[in-house]
Amino acid sequence: MSSMAPIGVFDSGIGGTTVVKELMKSLPNEKIVYFGDTARVPYGNKSKETIIMYSRQIADFLISQGVKAIVIACNTASALALETLRHELKVPIIGVVKPGAKAAAEATENNRIGVIATRATINSGIYEEFLHKTDPKIKIFKKACPLFVPLVEEGWISDDITRQIIHRYLDELLEKDIDALILGCTHYPLLAEEIAKVAGKKIKLVNPAFECAREFRYMLEENDLLCEEKQDPVHEFYVSDGPRAFAELAGSFLGEGIVGPDEVKIRNFEQR
Amino acid sequence: MSSMAPIGVFDSGIGGTTVVKELMKSLPNEKIVYFGDTARVPYGNKSKETIIMYSRQIADFLISQGVKAIVIACNTASALALETLRHELKVPIIGVVKPGAKAAAEATENNRIGVIATRATINSGIYEEFLHKTDPKIKIFKKACPLFVPLVEEGWISDDITRQIIHRYLDELLEKDIDALILGCTHYPLLAEEIAKVAGKKIKLVNPAFECAREFRYMLEENDLLCEEKQDPVHEFYVSDGPRAFAELAGSFLGEGIVGPDEVKIRNFEQR
Repeated sequence: MSSMAPIGVFDSGIGGTTVVKELMKSLPNEKIVYFGDTARVPYGNKSKETIIMYSRQIADFLISQGVKAIVIACNTASALALETLRHELKVPIIGVVKPGAKAAAEATENNRIGVIATRATINSGIYEEFLHKTDPKIKIFKKACPLFVPLVEEGWISDDITRQIIHRYLDELLEKDIDALILGCTHYPLLAEEIAKVAGKKIKLVNPAFECAREFRYMLEENDLLCEEKQDPVHEFYVSDGPRAFAELAGSFLGEGIVGPDEVKIRNFEQR
Repeated sequence: MSSMAPIGVFDSGIGGTTVVKELMKSLPNEKIVYFGDTARVPYGNKSKETIIMYSRQIADFLISQGVKAIVIACNTASALALETLRHELKVPIIGVVKPGAKAAAEATENNRIGVIATRATINSGIYEEFLHKTDPKIKIFKKACPLFVPLVEEGWISDDITRQIIHRYLDELLEKDIDALILGCTHYPLLAEEIAKVAGKKIKLVNPAFECAREFRYMLEENDLLCEEKQDPVHEFYVSDGPRAFAELAGSFLGEGIVGPDEVKIRNFEQR
C-alpha cells in the first residue's frame, strides 16, 4: 500500500466532519475520502448487529476507493463495530472512543469523569471499559442525550431551549463532582460552548476528535503510511442520500474557508 | 385473493402503530401484519428516491406474507412513495395523506388550514395538492417540526420543554387564523394534548389515522376483501431492528390492554 493513497473516514452522517476538521489540521497532506451514511442515519438507537452490518458495507466501499487506512469517526460505530472490522480488514483502522477515553484520563485530576453520548454508545459500556483499562480507580458517570443530535441538525445551537435541555441531561452528572466530560458523539462539539456554560469552568470538555487525529498520525507513521509529500489534497465526500443537504450542513461543521464548495465532490453511493 | 388474508401496514418505525390502533377499532376482524423499518428510521429527512426504494422493499415483504391490501401508515412514505407503489403493486394500497387532507377540508370553516409534518412531507407539497383538489380556495400554512419525533421517542410528552418547542414551531401558524391543523406525522397524535393547549379551542386537530382507517374499510368493501367473519385476530409485528425496544414503545403507542405482549410476534427482517 502506498503512502500516497487516501485515508478513509466514515460516519453515520454529517457529524464525522468534526473529525475531518481535526484530521485536516494534523495531517494536511493526506487526501480524505469521506463517507456519510445519510440514508440510514442515525445509528445511535440501533442494534450492534445492524451497526456492524452497515459499518462493514461502508469499509468495503472505502477500500474499493483505494484507502490505505480508515478512521471510524462515529462514536456509536467505534463502540460497536471497530473490534469486528479490525479483525476482518487488511488496512489499519482506528475509532474515536479509545483516544477519547485516553484524553479524558489525562484531563481528570480527581478521577471522576462524565460521559455523554447516544443511547447505543452509552449502553455498550465501551468508555468505561477503556477508562478502567487506563486506571481502574476512575469513577464514570454517564448519560445518553438523544435530543442533542436533532437539536444540532435543526441549527438550534445558541438557544434558550437547547440550554434547558442541556441542563435536563447534565444536572445529575454535575452533582457527581466530575472534572472532565467526554463529548462522546461527533455532533456534540458543536454544542460545546453551550455545554461549557452549563458545566462551568471547573469541568474540562473532552472532544475525542483531537486525540483521535493525533493517534491516527502515529498509526500511519508506524505503518510507514504517512504522506510526507507536501500537497494540497482535494478531498472526496460520499453520502448515501441527500448530497445537497449534506453540502449545506458540512459548511457549518467544517468551518467556512476550510473546504470550498468546489473542492467537495459529493456523489450518491449505490446501496449494496 | 381471499378476504381472510391479512392486511399489511408499514411505517418507518414505531409511529404507524397509531394507525394500527384506528384500524383495530374500525376493522376488528382483520388480521394485521405490521412492518416497522427501525433499522433505517427516520424517513423524514431523506430523499424521495431513497424513500421509494425502502417502501418498495417493505411492500414486497408484506406481499410475501400474503397480505390482501396495504396501508402506508407513514406520512412521509405516503407523500413520496404511494403513487409509485400504486402502479407497481397488484394489491390495493392506501396512504394517510389523502384521507388526512379530506378530513381537514371537512373540518375547516374559514378555509384556512395548518399542516405540521416532517421536512420531507412538508417539502413534497402533497397536502396542498390534495387540499386544493378538494377546494382550490383553501389557504394552507405549513411548518416542518423535526424535533417532535425525537421528543416523543424520548418520552417527554407532558413536559415544559416540549410545550416551549411546540410554541416555537406553531406560533407563526397560529397568527394566520387557521381553524384546522393536520397532525401530518404518525408520532404527532401522541403530542395532541399538548398541541391542543398551545393551539387553543378554536383550532380542530386533524389526525389522518382516523379518516385513513375509514377509507381503508371502504377500499376493502369495494374490492370484496372485507373480512366478515367474526374473529379475534393475532396480529404480527415485524421490525428491521431492535425488536425489544419496539415492543416496549409499542405499548405506549397502542394503549395498554389492546395488544398483550404475547399477541405481538416481533421478528427481525433480513435486509434485502
